[in-house]
Amino acid sequence: MPDRFSEELLLTNRTGGRLYREYAQHLPIIDFHCHLLPREIRENRVFSDLGEIWLGRDHYKWRAMRAFGIDEKYITGDADYHGKYLAFAKILPELIGNPLYIWCALELKRYFDIDEPLSAANAEDIYRRTRDAIAREGITPRWCMERSNVEIVCTTDDPIDPLEHHLAFREDGSARPRVLPAFRPDKSLYCEKAHFPGYVGELAEAAGLPIAGFADLIAALERRLQFFKTFGTAVSDHGIEEFVWREAAPEEVDGIFKKARSGARPTGEEIAKYRSAFLAALGGLYHRHGFVMQLHIGTYQDANRRGVREVGAARGFDCADDSTSVKSVGGLLNRLNEAGTLPKTLLYPLDPGKMETFAVLAGGFCGGGERGLVQLGAPWWFNDQTYGIRRQFEAAGSLYPPALSVGMITDSRSFFSYPRHELYRRVLCDWLGSLVERGEYFSGEGALKAIIENMCHGNAKAYFGFGGR
Amino acid sequence: MPDRFSEELLLTNRTGGRLYREYAQHLPIIDFHCHLLPREIRENRVFSDLGEIWLGRDHYKWRAMRAFGIDEKYITGDADYHGKYLAFAKILPELIGNPLYIWCALELKRYFDIDEPLSAANAEDIYRRTRDAIAREGITPRWCMERSNVEIVCTTDDPIDPLEHHLAFREDGSARPRVLPAFRPDKSLYCEKAHFPGYVGELAEAAGLPIAGFADLIAALERRLQFFKTFGTAVSDHGIEEFVWREAAPEEVDGIFKKARSGARPTGEEIAKYRSAFLAALGGLYHRHGFVMQLHIGTYQDANRRGVREVGAARGFDCADDSTSVKSVGGLLNRLNEAGTLPKTLLYPLDPGKMETFAVLAGGFCGGGERGLVQLGAPWWFNDQTYGIRRQFEAAGSLYPPALSVGMITDSRSFFSYPRHELYRRVLCDWLGSLVERGEYFSGEGALKAIIENMCHGNAKAYFGFGGR
Amino acid sequence: MPDRFSEELLLTNRTGGRLYREYAQHLPIIDFHCHLLPREIRENRVFSDLGEIWLGRDHYKWRAMRAFGIDEKYITGDADYHGKYLAFAKILPELIGNPLYIWCALELKRYFDIDEPLSAANAEDIYRRTRDAIAREGITPRWCMERSNVEIVCTTDDPIDPLEHHLAFREDGSARPRVLPAFRPDKSLYCEKAHFPGYVGELAEAAGLPIAGFADLIAALERRLQFFKTFGTAVSDHGIEEFVWREAAPEEVDGIFKKARSGARPTGEEIAKYRSAFLAALGGLYHRHGFVMQLHIGTYQDANRRGVREVGAARGFDCADDSTSVKSVGGLLNRLNEAGTLPKTLLYPLDPGKMETFAVLAGGFCGGGERGLVQLGAPWWFNDQTYGIRRQFEAAGSLYPPALSVGMITDSRSFFSYPRHELYRRVLCDWLGSLVERGEYFSGEGALKAIIENMCHGNAKAYFGFGGR
Repeated sequence: MPDRFSEELLLTNRTGGRLYREYAQHLPIIDFHCHLLPREIRENRVFSDLGEIWLGRDHYKWRAMRAFGIDEKYITGDADYHGKYLAFAKILPELIGNPLYIWCALELKRYFDIDEPLSAANAEDIYRRTRDAIAREGITPRWCMERSNVEIVCTTDDPIDPLEHHLAFREDGSARPRVLPAFRPDKSLYCEKAHFPGYVGELAEAAGLPIAGFADLIAALERRLQFFKTFGTAVSDHGIEEFVWREAAPEEVDGIFKKARSGARPTGEEIAKYRSAFLAALGGLYHRHGFVMQLHIGTYQDANRRGVREVGAARGFDCADDSTSVKSVGGLLNRLNEAGTLPKTLLYPLDPGKMETFAVLAGGFCGGGERGLVQLGAPWWFNDQTYGIRRQFEAAGSLYPPALSVGMITDSRSFFSYPRHELYRRVLCDWLGSLVERGEYFSGEGALKAIIENMCHGNAKAYFGFGGR
Repeated sequence: MPDRFSEELLLTNRTGGRLYREYAQHLPIIDFHCHLLPREIRENRVFSDLGEIWLGRDHYKWRAMRAFGIDEKYITGDADYHGKYLAFAKILPELIGNPLYIWCALELKRYFDIDEPLSAANAEDIYRRTRDAIAREGITPRWCMERSNVEIVCTTDDPIDPLEHHLAFREDGSARPRVLPAFRPDKSLYCEKAHFPGYVGELAEAAGLPIAGFADLIAALERRLQFFKTFGTAVSDHGIEEFVWREAAPEEVDGIFKKARSGARPTGEEIAKYRSAFLAALGGLYHRHGFVMQLHIGTYQDANRRGVREVGAARGFDCADDSTSVKSVGGLLNRLNEAGTLPKTLLYPLDPGKMETFAVLAGGFCGGGERGLVQLGAPWWFNDQTYGIRRQFEAAGSLYPPALSVGMITDSRSFFSYPRHELYRRVLCDWLGSLVERGEYFSGEGALKAIIENMCHGNAKAYFGFGGR
Repeated sequence: MPDRFSEELLLTNRTGGRLYREYAQHLPIIDFHCHLLPREIRENRVFSDLGEIWLGRDHYKWRAMRAFGIDEKYITGDADYHGKYLAFAKILPELIGNPLYIWCALELKRYFDIDEPLSAANAEDIYRRTRDAIAREGITPRWCMERSNVEIVCTTDDPIDPLEHHLAFREDGSARPRVLPAFRPDKSLYCEKAHFPGYVGELAEAAGLPIAGFADLIAALERRLQFFKTFGTAVSDHGIEEFVWREAAPEEVDGIFKKARSGARPTGEEIAKYRSAFLAALGGLYHRHGFVMQLHIGTYQDANRRGVREVGAARGFDCADDSTSVKSVGGLLNRLNEAGTLPKTLLYPLDPGKMETFAVLAGGFCGGGERGLVQLGAPWWFNDQTYGIRRQFEAAGSLYPPALSVGMITDSRSFFSYPRHELYRRVLCDWLGSLVERGEYFSGEGALKAIIENMCHGNAKAYFGFGGR
């Protein structure tokens, strides 16, 4: 029984293994959607230990630790990172079948060249070795990116963000990776939330425009979008809870905006109309300014409200919702297309049961001479693992050409998460190899090389317009 | 790396390969649901070139070409078929994982004995070779059917159709394949659409019966059904968008009919009641006249309305809907069963996420001494590919005996689509072989032979009553 | 081609085969959810023949026989068991891919050491051999349990049940397996059904408490729960049709209760409010008394009403519903967690399309120092087969650590159904082996041994508090 990390990981057929090693393995990474903090990239501080790296911000690990009954003190509580690391290391051998197992294995291998399995037995030893290596090598955010051959990274930023760190990155034009902002106006989308009235005021200030009505809101967002655009970015992003498509006249939407801004709570029907109008207006802006619209659909935010209250938001208490219908998203795409303002769009359904109907939907809105105009994004969040990636190739691939995909993203809060691109590439090459070996593809080596290079690198570069500089 | 079509395609285990070659490969084809035009079968004109055959009417290819950003001129526009063919050939090597890749490969192999991969590099050469073969062999609709050993074909026909071409087929009783009509009264189902008032008038004329109310509508349809029945057909078909089961008193349904016929638009609730009553009434007719009811459930017609307006309906702008609940279809089956008028019924859910709950539903309505009374139809439309077929065997097969299945259909607009039956048979035999090799089946050769012959031919023949003649 | 049962069944890789034989095969069985009758366990009568064992109460077989068009006389009708057995044996070779095939094969092998395939040809011979073996060995319910190494069995009991047979089991403390009751208050959940007013009266009598309002109902149920608890059981269970989470004030719930008890039919909205309040109240009781809450979600009871009327309830006319949203179950869990009364909870979604979103939901509600506080139950009912089990490991395993699972149950009405645990263990070990062989797990033999022992035995024992005695 193997007891070491194997470089044959997930490569179950000869063709796939060869494709991975010859064409996929060494391609640079374009990570066009993540949640890294620009400040931390800029400060580029040496990490303290593996506990900080692994447990400082990773809700996947926090959820797993809670499932194993570990005291919250060692999860998000006041234990030190050494203690948290030990608590996590103890459950790792039980995390069979879970993506955390192989993510951790890849991170130990790629960043520390450790290939033995971590467990309670060797946790202290590995703790010391990794702490020493961090100090010796000076392991920092940028070190990780360089080690993983990262070419471009896009962070996720609020429209009112002054982008001070990105301004610094822009000035240092030679640095690699290129770090770009992405435009995420979620705070303007959730008009029913408590932050809304105050946020609109902040946005008006950031844009230097008064916001009296819905049209002003969009104008202010456009002003900020133009500021983002000066950085050379073309990425936007929306995180969308329950979405019901409802058309409404501009005056009605304006009334809902004013009601929400005054602090009154809109009705469910009003929320649906506001969200519909908002996303249609933003889609129009993206089209005008050459941005890609990313729609992350189906979060069930704060499902466990007591957990959020006691521990905090985005700490593992969100779940996946099944309520957004394909016709609601179709309504939005149709509205944009009718207006001639459908931008490049990536659909990320969180409910895996909807992945295929969304792939079909994407196919129905392609055209206009654009390669992959509307397409599925990479398997998102909970689906971001071996099984989910493979299933997306097999299931959605039958419905929409996978060779058009702009590929993998980390969607991560951790600088150690680039091996997820490796995982994606291994699964991809293994799948391609299995198609070849079953006789389902025989166009030859050159065509496969191009497909791999496109899906792992080239498609993203072209789609987002990340040209040379 | 293989660079030729392989006869081992999809046969990954020894048992499956043997089963395919010995029992499945040479069985005749019964294609009981397709969209071929009776006129074209009758005219039996020699095709002009591969461009016409492949790109004249295939929305699968059109969608793929749009996804790759090809100009609409080369998709459905005014480019000639040679140009369209070249545009499509160029993307074929990138269609890895998509059913189009293997469909095209099988079509080149079976109809032209070409086994090299088509690409931009050899597109002109293959164009010339296939054009010459078409002329030399005189490749026509009936040539394709004969080459593919097609025994019976059912077209899809409107109740008002005079069936003039089918009358000619009937007279020429010796011709093979037997070409039969199928009864598809969708125009009477969508009472809210603009065509409805006019269509009802045409139906009255075709039936020779005045239509004043809902009962008259059903009577007129029955008259036409009886005319269809004289051809020896037993196939009906419904394409159903969103379906919500709502019972209503006959007078209420009659009122909705009259409202719709007057050109007024019924409400959503009225549409639900009308559709429920209509399908229940038609189910009753099918039961009385020994027809099979096919329910194709979950289309999202014209999702991209601008595409439909500019390019046309049924040209790749339809998608898959997720809104029809299993209980709505259950309501219909229950109503028919309560009335003692449940006909043989094939359920085709378009949303693959519903396939299993529909398989369970079918199992709950079997009985009455009928073999496979209610069952799933073959994976439909977007699901009609290697992955979808295999999944239906594995997933639905655990819920409803797959050995009862009436098997594959092309559902196609192309005379070159019979290799889809070959694909189905390969996937079937590979799956059966894998069960044998994992020890999940050991009833022996004779039982497997019978299962294969039934699923590929015998079940359909018995279920639809396609006896000898 | 193999024509005998093989001990290699489902073990497709070397590691998995070894894991199964060394660690899984001989573990005792804890079957914490089934529908066996306590009376029959106590009477421990020798069975008459295989017809009685197989066809006396098995709705899976009845459904399959109906699908094959067998006359109801031989299914649930007045034919004798010999005749029913012959009718079933005849279709068995056609049940390829269906769990019945391998269940029957395992039952013949494990209880009669018969390894040839049953068919019409040898049905009479096998009938005689099994009838003789039943008489010779004295095959009874307890004989089956002993043969299958069953350690603990929990039946399913109504709160008003006097548990007379369980009282006898408790007195005979040395008997193995331990037979415990489980608390299933479904009759109090369905306030809209005809039985409700009368049932509340019976409950009041059983509890020795008057029931005037909703709070009294809960008090009476708690009184009965405490009685159940004296047996050492910690298992409750709810079978839930359509569930919509709706909070309501206590007075409103009390009003709905009184309306329902008076025999008036509550509205849909009232039913939702009552069900929500009822499940929240029962969850609170379970938390207080250390019970596990099992939620079986998504039945479509009596879908075929004529079948139920003519043949009976629970005879194969139920189906699977797709209407209960993840947010409704999330609402219940959130309410309990807010109140500090969230008990250990097992979620069993019947719609396989919802399995993954429910696994994510479970993960969002873990914590409090409890191992696997909220988790998925084993694949339930229609999903209880090779494909469903494997899929749950692969799909849900990526979302929630499968090593925490309390494992398999038979959920069965048959004393011959323990081989379903064998099936589960084979699929489990095969999956674990495949992870090892693909390099996705390398923590070694000891860790795998612990995982297998936990998932097949230890987790259930600890979770339900089934300590030694």
